[in-house]
Amino acid sequence: MSDAYVIGVDMIKFGRFPDRTVPELGAEAALMALDDAGLTINDIQALWCGNLYQASGMVGQRILQLIGQTGIPVVNCANACATGATAFRDAWISVKAGLYDCVMAVGVEQMGRGLLGGGEPEKGISTEGLLGSNTMPAVFATAGMEHSRKYGTTFEQFAKISVKNHHHSTMNPKAMYQIETPLETVMNAEMIAYPNTKLMCSVNVDGSAAAIIVSEKKAKEMGMRRAVRVKASILSSDPYTELGSAMPDINQCTRLAVKNAYEMAGVGPDDIDLVELHDCFATAELLHYENLGLCGEGEAGRMIDAGESALGGRVPVNCSGGLLSKGHPLGATGIANIYEVSTHLRGEAGKRQVEGARLGLTHVIGLGSACAIHILEKVN
Amino acid sequence: MSDAYVIGVDMIKFGRFPDRTVPELGAEAALMALDDAGLTINDIQALWCGNLYQASGMVGQRILQLIGQTGIPVVNCANACATGATAFRDAWISVKAGLYDCVMAVGVEQMGRGLLGGGEPEKGISTEGLLGSNTMPAVFATAGMEHSRKYGTTFEQFAKISVKNHHHSTMNPKAMYQIETPLETVMNAEMIAYPNTKLMCSVNVDGSAAAIIVSEKKAKEMGMRRAVRVKASILSSDPYTELGSAMPDINQCTRLAVKNAYEMAGVGPDDIDLVELHDCFATAELLHYENLGLCGEGEAGRMIDAGESALGGRVPVNCSGGLLSKGHPLGATGIANIYEVSTHLRGEAGKRQVEGARLGLTHVIGLGSACAIHILEKVN
Repeated sequence: MSDAYVIGVDMIKFGRFPDRTVPELGAEAALMALDDAGLTINDIQALWCGNLYQASGMVGQRILQLIGQTGIPVVNCANACATGATAFRDAWISVKAGLYDCVMAVGVEQMGRGLLGGGEPEKGISTEGLLGSNTMPAVFATAGMEHSRKYGTTFEQFAKISVKNHHHSTMNPKAMYQIETPLETVMNAEMIAYPNTKLMCSVNVDGSAAAIIVSEKKAKEMGMRRAVRVKASILSSDPYTELGSAMPDINQCTRLAVKNAYEMAGVGPDDIDLVELHDCFATAELLHYENLGLCGEGEAGRMIDAGESALGGRVPVNCSGGLLSKGHPLGATGIANIYEVSTHLRGEAGKRQVEGARLGLTHVIGLGSACAIHILEKVN
Repeated sequence: MSDAYVIGVDMIKFGRFPDRTVPELGAEAALMALDDAGLTINDIQALWCGNLYQASGMVGQRILQLIGQTGIPVVNCANACATGATAFRDAWISVKAGLYDCVMAVGVEQMGRGLLGGGEPEKGISTEGLLGSNTMPAVFATAGMEHSRKYGTTFEQFAKISVKNHHHSTMNPKAMYQIETPLETVMNAEMIAYPNTKLMCSVNVDGSAAAIIVSEKKAKEMGMRRAVRVKASILSSDPYTELGSAMPDINQCTRLAVKNAYEMAGVGPDDIDLVELHDCFATAELLHYENLGLCGEGEAGRMIDAGESALGGRVPVNCSGGLLSKGHPLGATGIANIYEVSTHLRGEAGKRQVEGARLGLTHVIGLGSACAIHILEKVN
């Protein structure tokens, strides 16, 4: 199989847009990605659209109604927090299959206003109606406390994740927020589920992002201009969850995916220059340092203390501000991560640029559902 | 690209199962398809799950919770009435890409109890709440009347479609109904939207179907036993719909897809031995004879009169009983069609067997959204 490349990618500034529709938000990102690539909708041979909450609403086709109906194949994907990354991956697969030379993936979401939760739609149990230990804040709080119990990780260490990501977001004009949150502010914010305060939970925003993936042939025709190589694309599902289990494991799905991703890319964690990972809660980011192999077992607290995951550190994590400050519009997040890493590999990240970045990793995980990991490489 | 094959495929008997969950229905079909192939869930390297109405509910992962969580990639697809066929196609693409040797597609749906309609979920407009000309019965009635106006097609000719498909279903134990509906019964049934009476509208049922797709390498390892070659897999979106248009065109999306499908397969309509097409209404089946090139323009009325689309005729259509009698659980329909055609190509269709069938075509279309066409070929 020949390589596939990201040749155009962009995202809208995340925010709250109650007066706009999901297709409108998706169309805006699609047009931005086309513009970034110097292409038009007529160049796109197929579209994969990731959207979770309106997944039965044919969002991809509605986007084309707004930007040009060309009759191309359109697929709508839903995969919890990995929705956008899944759309990107299915689009990538179609290029690898040799079916198409130029395809697009769009991720878009308009969120509710509450905290994230789980639900069982087929039983009529909504996110809001599902209380108890299986809500997301409780799951990620408990996972953090288990890390504390085993390794002595402190409330302050978890809080530093939020300080770091908010600091990064001050350099990202597309983040929902660009405000510093000093350590005492984070620690004194409303407690949601110990050890995560309100500033340590992902921001519930609307947003969209889009990427254009091309074959090696097409990339060469376009002079490889600002191309980013997709070195690995991996999707995993939970290998373990017991049906109705009270407390899902948040680690295994990521560990399975990243092992396969490093193998596909032929690289190891030490080769990675920057990471956009799924900091749905501050505790999650800290645990994922270990899940992704960015540090040894039990060393994540030390890693944040040492500033290794901050911009300028050994392996900067969530330079975009992450879900904690950039925001987390579920269906858009996976492709927004691709945008962030690509922007660094292209050397276009401005004040937050990771100098000399050649290899970046993106990670999203929907609890109990899907983990998607992409490894992207600078071409020139 | 080397060929890909259907090596296992099955469906549950369509019916109404209010006491079962969507994942339970999907799991049943998945296990049946595995059994048909002589494989277990451990042989499956990736899963695509098609489901429309619970599309944000991670149905694919919930199926694996029931039949075995192996950590494989799971993608949930939604694409209106082409949902199941889209899951099948994305699974097929992954094999063509050389990523996997053995994957599964499951389609499953639990339907509401009303007539089919359109909706705009992102605006909070539900299917039931959307009245006026843009409801499905009105759209397909109008399309039929336009055919009558141009070609003189009669109420009786449209009604004969229903008589034929109900007759076919008496030979299909997996159809929702197995009852003959004489012409006068069809014509005297409750009028829904002229010229479609109640017996000329698709049956609202729950159902599931699953298919296992393997690479040429894997098919050979399995001795090509009962394998069916996928000669073409095409997905199209509407090339034309005006935003907010009162009356969508039901023909163009199919015409675009079938042109590409015949080209990919290197065959023409005269080569096709049987067809499972999207008879969501009797009028739709008649129009699709022309859209798929099974007869000339304006000749569809003559075609049904001559019995050419009946079992034993020139090109039998909807031997399964079709959506009109087998039933139409949206997400399952596309894969149920694959099951029906594969069963004929394997020579296992019993009383309804199309003798000597070597090449079959499946067709589904979601109005304004997606048309999927597959051409399948007998191997031995």
